[in-house]
Amino acid sequence: MKRIKLTIAYDGTNYSGWQMQNNAKTVEETLANALSTLLHEEVSLIGASRTDAGVHALGNVAAFDTESPIPPEKICYAVNSFLPEDIRVVKSEEVGEDFHPRFGAHNKCYEYLVSYGAFENPMERLYSYHIRKMPNIDAMKEAATYIVGEHDFESFCAAGAQVVSKVRTVYSLDVLPEESGLVIRITGNGFLYNMVRIIAGTLLKVGEGAIEPETVKDIIDAKNREKAGPTAPAKGLRLVWIEYDDKK
Amino acid sequence: MKRIKLTIAYDGTNYSGWQMQNNAKTVEETLANALSTLLHEEVSLIGASRTDAGVHALGNVAAFDTESPIPPEKICYAVNSFLPEDIRVVKSEEVGEDFHPRFGAHNKCYEYLVSYGAFENPMERLYSYHIRKMPNIDAMKEAATYIVGEHDFESFCAAGAQVVSKVRTVYSLDVLPEESGLVIRITGNGFLYNMVRIIAGTLLKVGEGAIEPETVKDIIDAKNREKAGPTAPAKGLRLVWIEYDDKK
Repeated sequence: MKRIKLTIAYDGTNYSGWQMQNNAKTVEETLANALSTLLHEEVSLIGASRTDAGVHALGNVAAFDTESPIPPEKICYAVNSFLPEDIRVVKSEEVGEDFHPRFGAHNKCYEYLVSYGAFENPMERLYSYHIRKMPNIDAMKEAATYIVGEHDFESFCAAGAQVVSKVRTVYSLDVLPEESGLVIRITGNGFLYNMVRIIAGTLLKVGEGAIEPETVKDIIDAKNREKAGPTAPAKGLRLVWIEYDDKK
Repeated sequence: MKRIKLTIAYDGTNYSGWQMQNNAKTVEETLANALSTLLHEEVSLIGASRTDAGVHALGNVAAFDTESPIPPEKICYAVNSFLPEDIRVVKSEEVGEDFHPRFGAHNKCYEYLVSYGAFENPMERLYSYHIRKMPNIDAMKEAATYIVGEHDFESFCAAGAQVVSKVRTVYSLDVLPEESGLVIRITGNGFLYNMVRIIAGTLLKVGEGAIEPETVKDIIDAKNREKAGPTAPAKGLRLVWIEYDDKK
């Protein structure tokens, strides 16, 4: 028995998120079915990040156990021919049997893409969130500095999320201007449900002048979801990479 | 009666090209229907570039005549609410009654996007052509120099195209490296059917070493479609802008 780690890229547009569910097409189910077909055995995946409907990934991670004799590093090439074009397994490798995609992760990177201008570019519409007016990027950068560090992120967590502790560490939060758009890039040791999208929605409120940059400190201290900005739309979000302590 | 010029961006993925045809959804038909609904009159469009199925545009141009009292520069905002998200009219303006989108054009710019690497990024799959191996960009740049200028482009025209003269002038042809990809950007006074895609396909053959850069001179001189490279896939192509002598 071998444990295989997969690194997966997908366009989340046509999926009801990562996690398997009844009566909805998900990335997990599509990938598990393709692996089962390829390997002639029932495959159960453990995913690192249960991305929401419409959220994209360049490097989500999943693991499964197999008895297959196919060399682990070849599985990615083979399984892609059983997958639709909007899902690609970009790496496959054997890992130790104690490897766990979720609990072993020590650093994750997400990007939130925003475009602005009078009209949305149809070719960017599925992969970024469009706003009319160019935001104040300096104000967003200042607000971002208050979010970096170890905090209780209750204010940036969707109501109803059931986790014991809402303390997380954000290692970096950069607001990067691009041609008629910007990228909000965040890294941290873990993220609460909708946390990145609520941070993006809050920074955009700062960018439009509706929230002062320093107020973000108060929003964190309030530990109250209602104090933060809205949850930015799913399509602007992409999971970029996940790092593990135990690199293979 | 006013003549209105429209500048149009679209994601061509879900359309059978620009031009109206029976039993297929086209950009022209979708746009004409939206305008007819908005203006309460039958609208006939004259398009500048009849882009093929799957080809995209940032700035295609079309014109129509109207009796509507809606201010010309407001039509773009109004019509977008009647259009699907993959088509946006980004500008509308009144022009002289002798304005013709096709005959008045004196400079057009197309881009052909290529990505490379072991796996295709699912988020780029609809808007670029993916190849495995990084091409030789210097060789492509050299080959491009032979294409610039006034030539009979018979070798770069789809067989069966019915035009009197195949002489066109390419003003510039740049091969621009990007992160894990490249952009082929071409400007010229007019393009034959499939010309940009055949030029892209030929440059990519040069990039993979199958055609020597200098051979491109012989391909032009041969005036024979069979001597050039393949027609690169539609999805990599986008019409960027069209310039007119008589700027309004």
